[in-house]
Amino acid sequence: MQNRITKLFNIKYPIVQGGMVWCSGWKLASAVSNAGGLGLLGAGSMYPEVLKEHLTKLKAATKNPFGVNVPLLYPEMDRIMEIIITEKVPIVFTSAGNPATWTKILQNEGIKVVHVIANTKFALKCQEAGVDAIVAEGFEAGGHNGREETTTLCLIPQIKKAVQLPLIAAGGIGSGQAIAAAFALGAEGVQIGSRFAASMESSAHEAFKQKIVEAKEGDTKLTLKKLTPVRLLDNPFYQQVLHYEIQGASPDEFKNLLGKGRAKKGMFEGDIKDGELEIGQVSALIDKVQPVQEIMDELVSGFNSTVENFHGIRL
Amino acid sequence: MQNRITKLFNIKYPIVQGGMVWCSGWKLASAVSNAGGLGLLGAGSMYPEVLKEHLTKLKAATKNPFGVNVPLLYPEMDRIMEIIITEKVPIVFTSAGNPATWTKILQNEGIKVVHVIANTKFALKCQEAGVDAIVAEGFEAGGHNGREETTTLCLIPQIKKAVQLPLIAAGGIGSGQAIAAAFALGAEGVQIGSRFAASMESSAHEAFKQKIVEAKEGDTKLTLKKLTPVRLLDNPFYQQVLHYEIQGASPDEFKNLLGKGRAKKGMFEGDIKDGELEIGQVSALIDKVQPVQEIMDELVSGFNSTVENFHGIRL
Repeated sequence: MQNRITKLFNIKYPIVQGGMVWCSGWKLASAVSNAGGLGLLGAGSMYPEVLKEHLTKLKAATKNPFGVNVPLLYPEMDRIMEIIITEKVPIVFTSAGNPATWTKILQNEGIKVVHVIANTKFALKCQEAGVDAIVAEGFEAGGHNGREETTTLCLIPQIKKAVQLPLIAAGGIGSGQAIAAAFALGAEGVQIGSRFAASMESSAHEAFKQKIVEAKEGDTKLTLKKLTPVRLLDNPFYQQVLHYEIQGASPDEFKNLLGKGRAKKGMFEGDIKDGELEIGQVSALIDKVQPVQEIMDELVSGFNSTVENFHGIRL
Repeated sequence: MQNRITKLFNIKYPIVQGGMVWCSGWKLASAVSNAGGLGLLGAGSMYPEVLKEHLTKLKAATKNPFGVNVPLLYPEMDRIMEIIITEKVPIVFTSAGNPATWTKILQNEGIKVVHVIANTKFALKCQEAGVDAIVAEGFEAGGHNGREETTTLCLIPQIKKAVQLPLIAAGGIGSGQAIAAAFALGAEGVQIGSRFAASMESSAHEAFKQKIVEAKEGDTKLTLKKLTPVRLLDNPFYQQVLHYEIQGASPDEFKNLLGKGRAKKGMFEGDIKDGELEIGQVSALIDKVQPVQEIMDELVSGFNSTVENFHGIRL
């Protein structure tokens, strides 16, 4: 299958591996790109020099297209973008900020720019900024999330109605069946985070991967809504947050509780008690840590068998 | 298409109209059943004698199968069930309670029993109770909702994995595209609430229907989590609830704020300021009040064109 997403990125499958903090270094991104998807580095958890090192290794590990996810609210943005341009990164996914700020600058360097949104308002801003595609991410996604709490099932048709941009669905997608569902809703590609966070090539700590595999329904919650909403896995740290929420704590109290480096502590250093563990609802459907190639094979065959089952079916 | 759901209910389309409080009386249920779906009365907002009256009118208005939705936690349950049995209702959807209590009693009268759930735990209870099918309802659904906050996209595959029962998807479904998405995830039928609540035949107050049509992304929120989670449309009453939530109010304070008859006030009497307006996220995608036949036609053609678009598509 060829569509606007495979053509835009020059990839075999319209499957993007989300650029996640602490999980997606060069090993994961190169494995996904080598398997025919689009691998992304997660620059959100990298100092500029770390990003540069990962880019060098990534380019040595794959000849296929790859990209970098850049949350625009992080510090040292000028330096990050300078590295991206100098290192000739072909594709950049921006998030958590205004798409107008960097889109044209990057595109003038020949870089394809995709922006991540969670509502129609930002989809329209993306269209105005002239991005090449958008990722629409629903409520069930891990990590930071929109205030509207619109689920992927409701979000994709809304965004499809609002803009003509090539549309990548994210949130709750971890199987070929879910890819087919997203395509039925109008998506032309998918971005998958959690399933790849639990892959062998992910740089997440093994203890965190194990927690993802063990996660059950209701084990993730969208929380910290008085700061920026984020979906976390239930653990002793989350229980503290929940306690604060029930008591009606103030934003400052939440800030103090959160402190600094919680996500690194949990996801990268493996402190599954006191760390912040960002993961999607779909973790309840993830049963094992697998190599990327195996995940990709299952995604592709799951999609194909789902679509074959529709053959001749009419209401 | 024929599948386990169409055969179980003996209907043309595997489309169930949710039995909603204050919206689904005999006019709506008969219109849906006459259009080839399964119409349900919403007994949750009917005194026993009112239910009896609606059943008489419903039976006069359609020769097709129909059903009643019964929230098991409501008072006068014995009387409600007695009427259902005496009036020879062919199908009962139970919710908000233990499926073991009534399933066998109803089935012994030749009634098909379906139970509404929002997690695997209750799906397994349903299997044990021997229900004929289940409705799995996701976070995006209107009205009362599960504590796990699992979205339809994540819930359907989980339930599919856990039980072999015929599976009806609910929550966020208002188009043929969404029906196809639910089927891709493993559902064999869908239950649609919000879109039918806004139909011409719905008994909802016209002012409430107008609010549904005007609703935009983020205009519904899952709230009152310290009592029973319920998805409400944003209005001055919801703003009061939100204010209480931010302050960390106690369950008793929420109970006092809610009082009695809020849903009737809003949904049936049209007090869109002080009433409780229960509706799903998919309201953001509902643009007009339409007759049921037109809605059904759009659902069927939307599904069929979506499935046709998959023809020959392979990853």
